[in-house]
Amino acid sequence: MSRPRRFIVVGADAAGMSAASEARRLDPDLAIVAYDRGGFASYSQCGLPYLVGGVVEQRQRLVARTIQEFAARRITVQLGHEVTAIDPARRVARVRVLADGTELEEPYDRLLLATGASPVRPPIPGLDLAGVFHLDVMEDALAIRTYLRDHQPRRAVIVGGGYIGLEMAENLRRLGLEVALVQRRPQLFPSVDVEIAVPIDQELAGHGVDVSRCDSVVEACEDRHGRVAEVHTNKGAVRADLVLLATGVKPTVELASAAGIALGATGAIAVDERLRTSISDVFAAGDCAEHWHRLLGRPTWVPLGTTANKQGRIAGRNAAGGDEAFAGIVGTAVVRVFDLEVGRTGLTEREAMAAGIACVATTLASTDHAGYLPDARPLTVKLVAERGTGRLLGGQAVGRGGVAKRVDVVATALHAGLSVEDLTRLDLAYAPPFNSVWDPVQVAATMLLRRGLDGAGGRDSP
Amino acid sequence: MSRPRRFIVVGADAAGMSAASEARRLDPDLAIVAYDRGGFASYSQCGLPYLVGGVVEQRQRLVARTIQEFAARRITVQLGHEVTAIDPARRVARVRVLADGTELEEPYDRLLLATGASPVRPPIPGLDLAGVFHLDVMEDALAIRTYLRDHQPRRAVIVGGGYIGLEMAENLRRLGLEVALVQRRPQLFPSVDVEIAVPIDQELAGHGVDVSRCDSVVEACEDRHGRVAEVHTNKGAVRADLVLLATGVKPTVELASAAGIALGATGAIAVDERLRTSISDVFAAGDCAEHWHRLLGRPTWVPLGTTANKQGRIAGRNAAGGDEAFAGIVGTAVVRVFDLEVGRTGLTEREAMAAGIACVATTLASTDHAGYLPDARPLTVKLVAERGTGRLLGGQAVGRGGVAKRVDVVATALHAGLSVEDLTRLDLAYAPPFNSVWDPVQVAATMLLRRGLDGAGGRDSP
Repeated sequence: MSRPRRFIVVGADAAGMSAASEARRLDPDLAIVAYDRGGFASYSQCGLPYLVGGVVEQRQRLVARTIQEFAARRITVQLGHEVTAIDPARRVARVRVLADGTELEEPYDRLLLATGASPVRPPIPGLDLAGVFHLDVMEDALAIRTYLRDHQPRRAVIVGGGYIGLEMAENLRRLGLEVALVQRRPQLFPSVDVEIAVPIDQELAGHGVDVSRCDSVVEACEDRHGRVAEVHTNKGAVRADLVLLATGVKPTVELASAAGIALGATGAIAVDERLRTSISDVFAAGDCAEHWHRLLGRPTWVPLGTTANKQGRIAGRNAAGGDEAFAGIVGTAVVRVFDLEVGRTGLTEREAMAAGIACVATTLASTDHAGYLPDARPLTVKLVAERGTGRLLGGQAVGRGGVAKRVDVVATALHAGLSVEDLTRLDLAYAPPFNSVWDPVQVAATMLLRRGLDGAGGRDSP
Repeated sequence: MSRPRRFIVVGADAAGMSAASEARRLDPDLAIVAYDRGGFASYSQCGLPYLVGGVVEQRQRLVARTIQEFAARRITVQLGHEVTAIDPARRVARVRVLADGTELEEPYDRLLLATGASPVRPPIPGLDLAGVFHLDVMEDALAIRTYLRDHQPRRAVIVGGGYIGLEMAENLRRLGLEVALVQRRPQLFPSVDVEIAVPIDQELAGHGVDVSRCDSVVEACEDRHGRVAEVHTNKGAVRADLVLLATGVKPTVELASAAGIALGATGAIAVDERLRTSISDVFAAGDCAEHWHRLLGRPTWVPLGTTANKQGRIAGRNAAGGDEAFAGIVGTAVVRVFDLEVGRTGLTEREAMAAGIACVATTLASTDHAGYLPDARPLTVKLVAERGTGRLLGGQAVGRGGVAKRVDVVATALHAGLSVEDLTRLDLAYAPPFNSVWDPVQVAATMLLRRGLDGAGGRDSP
């Protein structure tokens, strides 16, 4: 087909603005317009807990590029503009200007859906009370800051023990609030296997966070000002003048669905490796789209900023006439909870089993660097491999330093298809302040090899 | 041939004892004896600067495994025993017991040379004075500690700005000594390119280390007690009541040479990928041997503890009847100097040019994690790639945190043969306390790709 002249981006955050920037790099003449129903573009969503906690004082600090900077590259960003419909047959997007309700019809040659994800809203009475928040977009963080300032809440209840719940527990404690965390499942941070998650409980307890596991909020109750004052859970009543719902997100796909664009089995928008949707000239990237998983060999849905940036860049390139494939994810993630670092990549043992992959695993208690130095900190590393073949499936780590480093080595190895044995051969950086002469990942790999990849068991001595 | 019954290891440190342990794992019946002329076995040589500095208080802390622990696995360690000759025709090693001068003849079926490296001793008058030290083996560290205790030196001169010189500058400053460092070349730590080394000068200056570059010691002079009191350099006289010579090491190959074992072009013992020397049933590993370089595709000599452990394990396995190849090094190293971290892997730009490889490079000033967090620290990353092909050749980093992490990602990528473009596709761990959404290594890779791998130049904006 002819060269595209007009590229519309729906959603002006990580994926959308990465796409816009990359499209501009490829084609200096392409008209590029990004619409977002929100009031902020191109900021670090992952930084929001730290904005609430005051670690980041100014919201402007979270902005990667301002609208003026985009304008200087002739990328138009229209905030407060909601794309309400796409007509693929006519190649037209219907845009509502939220300020006055006017509707526009905007033609496109290529369109990118970068609509992101939205918080799951549990069906619990009282969640519309003042003082009950999600933390999804900049507006949420600013609203929480305002509420903290105006109402000086002293007791917070966080619902959910995933990334946001854990990071917010830290940040609300930093502000001096009493924090209770209500978690439905028995394990906090279910992204890792249970033995890697156990230290999180200790860390939260050590920092005065009251965790109630296998528990759910059933109702939020108000005080005489109409503000939240208490939540009822399966286990009892908890005073709460601030409630944060961190019960997960779901892909924002209504616009896509209404346009007849196919969703995948995950519920997110199905894309091919060029990030094209089922409808011609419409791409999708980021939290609204599926993410090819290199180890599982199928699409998954793992909404993360890193992936949104990568997919956005590729979708933008392809929309502008380029031709690049998304290489896929390996399932890497890391979180800090107070002074504890927890990370994972590839498949956990639980995920491998759920995927029907027979696996062997080993967990090693080590230190982040040479154990004879007084500042060495405990580090636990877990490796998972396919039973029999020794194919490396994943790695996890928890400790007080050096977690992301080990996760990144395993993530790189997974991307490259290295084996457990290959891990033992890596020429990794060593000096006593940084590591042991054999990296804990290598020691764990050696343990796994010595024990036998058939899972028959054996000695664990390194 | 028949199964080996007797394995002699010459040198009871990293390579030697790794070999002994691995041989035992493979063959429970093999007789294994390790001889060392020194008084200590199996300790962390890299920990010695921290033992001198008192960061590690007890020398026992540096011991990986005691002689009793080896004995429990029926590995005999004979300290104070020097192997003075090998007779490959008769398969006999001549061993001198240093305590009484007796000589023994010990038969072997397999023998490993793990004789390590020895300090280069510059031909300078006065280096035999009391108060002049190397830091090579445990005995050196203990002698320095004793001298510090007995003579309370106040002014130290360190000769050489490599790993040991830099680590000892830190550790002697920690003890409160005035420290001057004399460096022959214009650049400290020539293992990295000049722009990566520049912050080392600032760091040393900031910690009160007086560095004299392009300078050499010409003489060391004594006081009336016969102890060193002053050194003369090309640039003048410097008071010194302690001198540390850190002018590099050379492979210890006299025993091998005398036995007719071939040395390689590097001057270290030539080995094949099974770590066999030119003479049947004699293996070599660690600092006395050559090290296959995966990127250069030829043997190099890069004496490091990590490589010694890896080669030792493989040599021990093969000596005991196994069959494993050494995968080779990619040239990874890291050093901490006070609060500064400096690391490298692969080839530096200078090394690539010296090897006749046309290359392109980029240097990125970034931060170790999300720049909007107040504890983000500066991090500079340099990537080197082959001109035209985009083959990744190496990476370097300098900063106050996160250096080893980035070096290890690039080291893993180099081992796996990933390209610069592959680096941009890695699914690395991200949360604001750990990283930016694009790792600095990925940003540098993107810069390199955008600028063009033909080296024609272009914009550097990320």
